[in-house]
Amino acid sequence: MEKFRIAVINGPNLDMLGTREKDIYGTKRLQDIDEEILREAEKYDLGLTFFQSNSEGGLIDYLHGCVGKIDGIVLNAGAYTHYSIALRDAIAAVNIPTVEVHLSNIYKREEFRHTSVIAPVCVGQISGFGAYSYILALRALLETLDDSKSS
Amino acid sequence: MEKFRIAVINGPNLDMLGTREKDIYGTKRLQDIDEEILREAEKYDLGLTFFQSNSEGGLIDYLHGCVGKIDGIVLNAGAYTHYSIALRDAIAAVNIPTVEVHLSNIYKREEFRHTSVIAPVCVGQISGFGAYSYILALRALLETLDDSKSS
Amino acid sequence: MEKFRIAVINGPNLDMLGTREKDIYGTKRLQDIDEEILREAEKYDLGLTFFQSNSEGGLIDYLHGCVGKIDGIVLNAGAYTHYSIALRDAIAAVNIPTVEVHLSNIYKREEFRHTSVIAPVCVGQISGFGAYSYILALRALLETLDDSKSS
Amino acid sequence: MEKFRIAVINGPNLDMLGTREKDIYGTKRLQDIDEEILREAEKYDLGLTFFQSNSEGGLIDYLHGCVGKIDGIVLNAGAYTHYSIALRDAIAAVNIPTVEVHLSNIYKREEFRHTSVIAPVCVGQISGFGAYSYILALRALLETLDDSKSS
Amino acid sequence: MEKFRIAVINGPNLDMLGTREKDIYGTKRLQDIDEEILREAEKYDLGLTFFQSNSEGGLIDYLHGCVGKIDGIVLNAGAYTHYSIALRDAIAAVNIPTVEVHLSNIYKREEFRHTSVIAPVCVGQISGFGAYSYILALRALLETLDDSKSS
Amino acid sequence: MEKFRIAVINGPNLDMLGTREKDIYGTKRLQDIDEEILREAEKYDLGLTFFQSNSEGGLIDYLHGCVGKIDGIVLNAGAYTHYSIALRDAIAAVNIPTVEVHLSNIYKREEFRHTSVIAPVCVGQISGFGAYSYILALRALLETLDDSKSS
Amino acid sequence: MEKFRIAVINGPNLDMLGTREKDIYGTKRLQDIDEEILREAEKYDLGLTFFQSNSEGGLIDYLHGCVGKIDGIVLNAGAYTHYSIALRDAIAAVNIPTVEVHLSNIYKREEFRHTSVIAPVCVGQISGFGAYSYILALRALLETLDDSKSS
Amino acid sequence: MEKFRIAVINGPNLDMLGTREKDIYGTKRLQDIDEEILREAEKYDLGLTFFQSNSEGGLIDYLHGCVGKIDGIVLNAGAYTHYSIALRDAIAAVNIPTVEVHLSNIYKREEFRHTSVIAPVCVGQISGFGAYSYILALRALLETLDDSKSS
Amino acid sequence: MEKFRIAVINGPNLDMLGTREKDIYGTKRLQDIDEEILREAEKYDLGLTFFQSNSEGGLIDYLHGCVGKIDGIVLNAGAYTHYSIALRDAIAAVNIPTVEVHLSNIYKREEFRHTSVIAPVCVGQISGFGAYSYILALRALLETLDDSKSS
Amino acid sequence: MEKFRIAVINGPNLDMLGTREKDIYGTKRLQDIDEEILREAEKYDLGLTFFQSNSEGGLIDYLHGCVGKIDGIVLNAGAYTHYSIALRDAIAAVNIPTVEVHLSNIYKREEFRHTSVIAPVCVGQISGFGAYSYILALRALLETLDDSKSS
Amino acid sequence: MEKFRIAVINGPNLDMLGTREKDIYGTKRLQDIDEEILREAEKYDLGLTFFQSNSEGGLIDYLHGCVGKIDGIVLNAGAYTHYSIALRDAIAAVNIPTVEVHLSNIYKREEFRHTSVIAPVCVGQISGFGAYSYILALRALLETLDDSKSS
Amino acid sequence: MEKFRIAVINGPNLDMLGTREKDIYGTKRLQDIDEEILREAEKYDLGLTFFQSNSEGGLIDYLHGCVGKIDGIVLNAGAYTHYSIALRDAIAAVNIPTVEVHLSNIYKREEFRHTSVIAPVCVGQISGFGAYSYILALRALLETLDDSKSS
Repeated sequence: MEKFRIAVINGPNLDMLGTREKDIYGTKRLQDIDEEILREAEKYDLGLTFFQSNSEGGLIDYLHGCVGKIDGIVLNAGAYTHYSIALRDAIAAVNIPTVEVHLSNIYKREEFRHTSVIAPVCVGQISGFGAYSYILALRALLETLDDSKSS
Repeated sequence: MEKFRIAVINGPNLDMLGTREKDIYGTKRLQDIDEEILREAEKYDLGLTFFQSNSEGGLIDYLHGCVGKIDGIVLNAGAYTHYSIALRDAIAAVNIPTVEVHLSNIYKREEFRHTSVIAPVCVGQISGFGAYSYILALRALLETLDDSKSS
Repeated sequence: MEKFRIAVINGPNLDMLGTREKDIYGTKRLQDIDEEILREAEKYDLGLTFFQSNSEGGLIDYLHGCVGKIDGIVLNAGAYTHYSIALRDAIAAVNIPTVEVHLSNIYKREEFRHTSVIAPVCVGQISGFGAYSYILALRALLETLDDSKSS
Repeated sequence: MEKFRIAVINGPNLDMLGTREKDIYGTKRLQDIDEEILREAEKYDLGLTFFQSNSEGGLIDYLHGCVGKIDGIVLNAGAYTHYSIALRDAIAAVNIPTVEVHLSNIYKREEFRHTSVIAPVCVGQISGFGAYSYILALRALLETLDDSKSS
Repeated sequence: MEKFRIAVINGPNLDMLGTREKDIYGTKRLQDIDEEILREAEKYDLGLTFFQSNSEGGLIDYLHGCVGKIDGIVLNAGAYTHYSIALRDAIAAVNIPTVEVHLSNIYKREEFRHTSVIAPVCVGQISGFGAYSYILALRALLETLDDSKSS
Repeated sequence: MEKFRIAVINGPNLDMLGTREKDIYGTKRLQDIDEEILREAEKYDLGLTFFQSNSEGGLIDYLHGCVGKIDGIVLNAGAYTHYSIALRDAIAAVNIPTVEVHLSNIYKREEFRHTSVIAPVCVGQISGFGAYSYILALRALLETLDDSKSS
Repeated sequence: MEKFRIAVINGPNLDMLGTREKDIYGTKRLQDIDEEILREAEKYDLGLTFFQSNSEGGLIDYLHGCVGKIDGIVLNAGAYTHYSIALRDAIAAVNIPTVEVHLSNIYKREEFRHTSVIAPVCVGQISGFGAYSYILALRALLETLDDSKSS
Repeated sequence: MEKFRIAVINGPNLDMLGTREKDIYGTKRLQDIDEEILREAEKYDLGLTFFQSNSEGGLIDYLHGCVGKIDGIVLNAGAYTHYSIALRDAIAAVNIPTVEVHLSNIYKREEFRHTSVIAPVCVGQISGFGAYSYILALRALLETLDDSKSS
Repeated sequence: MEKFRIAVINGPNLDMLGTREKDIYGTKRLQDIDEEILREAEKYDLGLTFFQSNSEGGLIDYLHGCVGKIDGIVLNAGAYTHYSIALRDAIAAVNIPTVEVHLSNIYKREEFRHTSVIAPVCVGQISGFGAYSYILALRALLETLDDSKSS
Repeated sequence: MEKFRIAVINGPNLDMLGTREKDIYGTKRLQDIDEEILREAEKYDLGLTFFQSNSEGGLIDYLHGCVGKIDGIVLNAGAYTHYSIALRDAIAAVNIPTVEVHLSNIYKREEFRHTSVIAPVCVGQISGFGAYSYILALRALLETLDDSKSS
Repeated sequence: MEKFRIAVINGPNLDMLGTREKDIYGTKRLQDIDEEILREAEKYDLGLTFFQSNSEGGLIDYLHGCVGKIDGIVLNAGAYTHYSIALRDAIAAVNIPTVEVHLSNIYKREEFRHTSVIAPVCVGQISGFGAYSYILALRALLETLDDSKSS
Repeated sequence: MEKFRIAVINGPNLDMLGTREKDIYGTKRLQDIDEEILREAEKYDLGLTFFQSNSEGGLIDYLHGCVGKIDGIVLNAGAYTHYSIALRDAIAAVNIPTVEVHLSNIYKREEFRHTSVIAPVCVGQISGFGAYSYILALRALLETLDDSKSS
């Protein structure tokens, strides 16, 4: 059995990565990023699951389904980051360590993107390093899970 | 035929009741609450329908489907309470008497939970009495329906 | 001896009920509501006391006097709901379970009525069901008192 | 019988007029102003009543007592002007034409004195003419009462 | 020579009085109001001038022209009341006692009408008594001028 | 006689169209736009009048003069859109159906251009289609006038 | 092949058109409006597709599916207009010219309806002309597409 | 005769001290504090008067009564600190040096307790030292009175 | 021919300089300042034009007329500085280098004078040096024009 | 060894005391105040250290150096009071009881001086008693240290 | 002896001038600007001192040291302009005429740069003319010093 | 020569790590963290420099000194994160890629810690992973430097 089971969850419009607005989000497609995460994961004993949805309810359903099956979550909530209190409540409800991740530095963009309603229920936040944000988030999550295991 | 047909509608994360964040929401599961409502409903001549969804669109679809089939609604909109203008518009559109209900006293919690965008289109609001909030809401709804029938 | 001693407290302008602004507050006089509460109370083993005052200080004095004599409070603080921090502090000071009640749905009215400074120190809030709000509040209070007794 | 029965009501600290802060409020005592009002009233067929209280509740009680006995009110609510929603509700409840009056021009003073929570339920507002504000308010009230009588 | 020379100045849209929005502004035309003011003025030894303009600059020009020719001003600045700092500066610049007047109670209307940028440079404000507001303003102005003459 | 008499009114700086800031407002001069409107108007039985002024008061004067002579108005109020309550009151006063039009999409520009104080007294708003916004506005106005005629 | 392929997309509660809140939204059903659009479209060489969903995620999914198949979009986002940043991002992501449309004049309604989070990523906005808003939007879209084709 | 006559005035809910919310306000009763003040006062030649009221009007009445009888005031206005402009006006009206005192550090508590509307009319403020705040306030007041005597 | 043609433009109430509010604006009349500017201009090869208007539209008209005739503008927009977006748009439209000037230090005065809506479209701002502000502005303008000529 | 070791720390501009702005801060120099504190300290068994710096970093360095050497702090942070979160964090970090002191009543001055970012991490606050504020602060600090020692 | 002794003080990051962000701040180094100021100063009988520091405390220390040695100050406070109340207090404390200067037009940049907390204690402000802003500031300062000498 | 020269910079109070407020910041001392960074750095070809200062000016001085000597920066600005625009300007001025790092999740803490004024000039932000945040930041920085080298 794997040491940790990790879910990598992507929210609205992240399925469009690599084909549109490349100046902001880069040229990699979501599946390219998934593959990079998989390569990184190979260094550790991990089980990875990938999920993307444009639906707020779909993301919440998926999060609920993680209970008992997933040890940690890497989450890019896309635009829901800024207003989905329902998603925030879902993260709090499932009580699985979650690392918030953003491709772009959200603090360099429009005012309304500076607020994250999910940040207070996540372990921490990583933003601004493109696809590499996910790799960092995975590492951060492993460190967190290792810590809580050993403590 | 029953005197009134009542829909009890629950929004996002309420399917997680009783298993998580018990200090805020209590230890009862949603189905325990449904059974308590059913027991209370037996005292009256009522038809009850239960619905839960984590999806904003799913809740709106269900509300639309209530037209012509439901006389009154008990609604716990969960986190959508605080920002779903679409849900508010749906309640206004179907024009069925709706009682807003909350398990916890939302005014004791975070600032952003003090605002209800659906309150202005509901008959009234009951918040803070745990599962018993639903029983009170059912009673409030019956009183409202009786009043409008006799007037 | 009664099971619970309950005080029903009404704040400013509620003595004018039934004679003025009937479109908002209905046609029942405060004494009609008191009688309805008494009728409801007969079903249970309760001691009821009624108090109304237009004076912030008068309401606070009365609340202080409840210590050791009253088990639970049904409170319609009228306009003081929206700004009387002194009343809020009094409720917190006496530490008697208090249910906040409003005849009208305060969220359908002027912006300044959407804020309740007493809500965070009350058990819960019931608003929008006219005189029946008090009956619901009484029931909610009994449930609360029963719960804390048995726990 | 008099044509109109008028109450002249003064709120908190107006009993201190003429002895303190003369640069803002002038040198006339409240009783000097009352006498000026009486002299003006002699020109018309009026019954005048004078009342002053520092108590919010006391002012509300008095207003309630005006129902059926008073045709119009001249009201200087003092500092309660700026926050007493309870007083506002009392004016709305008794439904007697009320003219709001201020000695000083409240818009020349501190920011918090620029807001009047009672203005929306009064016929109109007169502010800034010292004791003469009351004389103008009396005239404004008579005009209002004459108009509503003839219409 | 007259005791006082008074200018009655009306701002934008007041030339439309009596023909439009009669529920808010009444059925009297501006010239009807002017005539009422003239009748009232006959009781005193006054020289009256009337001016109306829809132009902010036109009103300022006229105010400047009052220096040395006018002793007091009755001013209904219409919508300019709420944002014309230029008009405010003009009133301060000419330094002639000015009474601010409004037909309707501006505090009963839209939020943006609750602010008067000219109030802090006027003697006082009278609002809400329809055409009679002007009569009251004239009286208030005379009282003010008498006071400053005798002091 | 024409079916409808339409006034096309342009506010401040629109006389500079086509010579300046072409990246925002395009290369057409106001008279080019007027000619396009005339060509469109030929398809219908219309009387068209064109007016441009940089003066708030001038625009209000013109609007007042439309009463009894004009059936509908196409209005680009330029920068006055954002703060001229006097212009808003003029539109409300003359009570002629008015369609608000903007060359650029005002919601893509500076924050202060997102507010229109005249929008609440206009039939509707069209913004962002360059010169073609006027053609659409003319069509929208005709539809509105046809509707009100037939109803 | 058609000159342009156009999608007409409607958001939450617009499926209830014509049966509810007729005073705000009119008596036409959504399918009546669709038919009017089709009739208008016959004048041009167009391929039209209609889509309605109450789901935020559903609307985003549909928008993504438009890439490569649709040349322009007429979008009434309903209540999502006011808060769905996810929908905004979807419009920006697919990069298809989109015209924002509203049946009612949203600036005449509640404060929270005055903000459109999607406006900055649309070509322009048309609001307030009932069903005819869609016809105008279609025309505006064609003009936009013609312009970008010829340039 | 005493050197100075001092009034120690306590506002709403301070009569409940020592019996409730001991974690915030400590275990001393108001009369314990009064006795400590008396013991401290014995060191100087002082006349002390003690007053407590839950009524805003009662506190204002008492303050008015101090004129000519009291040289300095130690005032804990309780919750009225945060909104009673009437109390503020009373302090300004009686024009007796007043030291504002708080048991708890009001800046460590809820946001709404960070504002003191009476502070600008007091000599100074002492907050956070429990019962000892009163002793410090007495000392501060004596220093102030000594200074103004000698100057 | 002169090296540069400069317009010195003054807005509302600046024609009153030197006769009123001398403590704020000094004792010099506008024509005194004009003469000082002329004396300064003699040192350089300049053509100067002076214009003053109290009218927002008049100032905009004049600015439009400067196109092709004026190389640089010294502008004291008076109170229009704080709210005239129309004037701002005019400065942007004519695209002539403009230096914003104020007699008084606007940041020492009322809050509403701290905002300049024209500042973002001007080269720079000089405020607080009385009449000498204009001399500095002229020098600043020349420097700017020299720079853009040589670059 | 002394009973308590106390540091008296003064922030920016307090070295200028007594020579400048005497109407606000009085005529005593900082060294005069220090001597008064020393005289007061002689009554108790205390070790006193005095420090003043205009540098935010300097103050933080000094605070860090107090760990293990100082039992209590009297701190007048000057203007840093209003914005230095770094200073606040330093006080929290060293965890030594600190009494916040101000010469003037900061609530009588500019709005921006009403906020203290260090107040929530101090024991309490004393403001408005000139140099005597320090004596009171010393006494308050001793009381606090005595209490914590005996508890 | 020189007529006036002038200090030219530059705040944080101005030592980096000319090497970085040249599009905003230009290509001149601080020492180039100093030399230009020296050249300008040669025309007058002046003693000049130059100081630059990145430290808030360092700037305050320097300002304090100016007392008795410096007659006027030219100050570019850099980013401290926007939040250093300590610097503001230092300027007020030393009471030496100070002219505020900025290279760039701060009103064309980010919102947070539009506020100057030091402006209210300076003589005036000059912003937007690059290095030439300093020359203008020097001239403005001399004019101010000449005026105060002759008055 | 090393591939990259990296500076690890720590701001105010971070020298107190591990000895104070361990529940928020953990038990590691700053030098422990430095050693962990060094161990991680050994895996790559890096030159590391460590700097800590409590002084805003000291940090800015150090940043300026990095020009030409340092390729990338890991920065924990401590409390200066929230208000030091001077530090922000320094980061922008030196133009060296900088990664912002925080030990705690700043979005779980006080409201004023949710704002980072330096974020918009940094590459990205990592917050919430304790000492491991630095390791992640180092990796993020290397990735960024690698990317810009290869591009």
